[in-house]
Amino acid sequence: MDTLSRLEQTIATRRAADPETSYVARLSARGLPKMAQKLGEEGVETVIAALSGDKAELVGEAADLLFHLLILLGAKDVALIDVLQELDRREGTSGLVEKASRTQ
Amino acid sequence: MDTLSRLEQTIATRRAADPETSYVARLSARGLPKMAQKLGEEGVETVIAALSGDKAELVGEAADLLFHLLILLGAKDVALIDVLQELDRREGTSGLVEKASRTQ
Amino acid sequence: MDTLSRLEQTIATRRAADPETSYVARLSARGLPKMAQKLGEEGVETVIAALSGDKAELVGEAADLLFHLLILLGAKDVALIDVLQELDRREGTSGLVEKASRTQ
Amino acid sequence: MDTLSRLEQTIATRRAADPETSYVARLSARGLPKMAQKLGEEGVETVIAALSGDKAELVGEAADLLFHLLILLGAKDVALIDVLQELDRREGTSGLVEKASRTQ
Repeated sequence: MDTLSRLEQTIATRRAADPETSYVARLSARGLPKMAQKLGEEGVETVIAALSGDKAELVGEAADLLFHLLILLGAKDVALIDVLQELDRREGTSGLVEKASRTQ
Repeated sequence: MDTLSRLEQTIATRRAADPETSYVARLSARGLPKMAQKLGEEGVETVIAALSGDKAELVGEAADLLFHLLILLGAKDVALIDVLQELDRREGTSGLVEKASRTQ
Repeated sequence: MDTLSRLEQTIATRRAADPETSYVARLSARGLPKMAQKLGEEGVETVIAALSGDKAELVGEAADLLFHLLILLGAKDVALIDVLQELDRREGTSGLVEKASRTQ
Repeated sequence: MDTLSRLEQTIATRRAADPETSYVARLSARGLPKMAQKLGEEGVETVIAALSGDKAELVGEAADLLFHLLILLGAKDVALIDVLQELDRREGTSGLVEKASRTQ
């Protein structure tokens, strides 16, 4: 079983754990806006690391971003597999279609 | 081979493609600050979707976020596996250690 | 009358204007999540400009950020003066108090 | 003298103060990426407050955002007046021109 799926399960288990001993439980108890805030902040920190940090910092911030994305998805009852299947679906479209749908 | 690893390879291939037909090539040609900006914006959009959207919107934004994270990591020559191993490494620490290292 | 107060009034007037000719009306018509998204994106772009751009870019992004902050405040019926008075209130506290209240 | 100009001066003075007693000095000592990170995080928190908080929270987050914007501008040697003049300059353009220049 791969890292992200296992982490998704760990998060689901910890959500109901004791906030005293679990970060996931503690963040979950603070509610959805706080979980969303953390995701947004990790996005900013990933930006900073990419522009001003070294590789190790970027690895750390990307890990934080993925961790908090999984917490947020879990809180909204969205499974990681749904996001991956969305990526597979897009991947199936040709580069030309991708181009057309992405021009902003 | 799983979705994110395959997508990572597709992105690596497309980076050198024709910007006329590839979004990845076009974004890459605009430079690292633009790639970082897109990651940050997708973080914001994921926050908005989690707080104000439905599940389908959150799935779409989370997919966008992962896609642009892989583009940014690739541009900085950071492999997805390094990020996943960092998550594995943290996962190995106990909940108590996690708690101690995360209190900010 | 200063720039930000005048801009706040202009935005209040334009909100009810024709979306065909007014950006403020068009953005307002898309709803609060979209206005909040723009504010968040301008925050990201200001970060990027500060780290990777020249002074002119930072000036432009900071202007965008202030503009969209005023739009968002207006949409929530919060007056700029309330925010300025909050800043005045904090300014009144001593550096030591400030320090104590800001350590997180 | 108005709030933001006075705050800009206060920040300029505090930058060289003792990090033990001044938040501005402490943040400045951590470098530009950290100041930019704070600005980005306050942008995220303003988004969250607009979507999930009450008016008082939005006032507080908007004040934080302005405060950290002034810190970041000062660190890059950009004067608030330059940003306000940029807003004045845009304000001078007609709604139609604004519309044309803003369609993305």
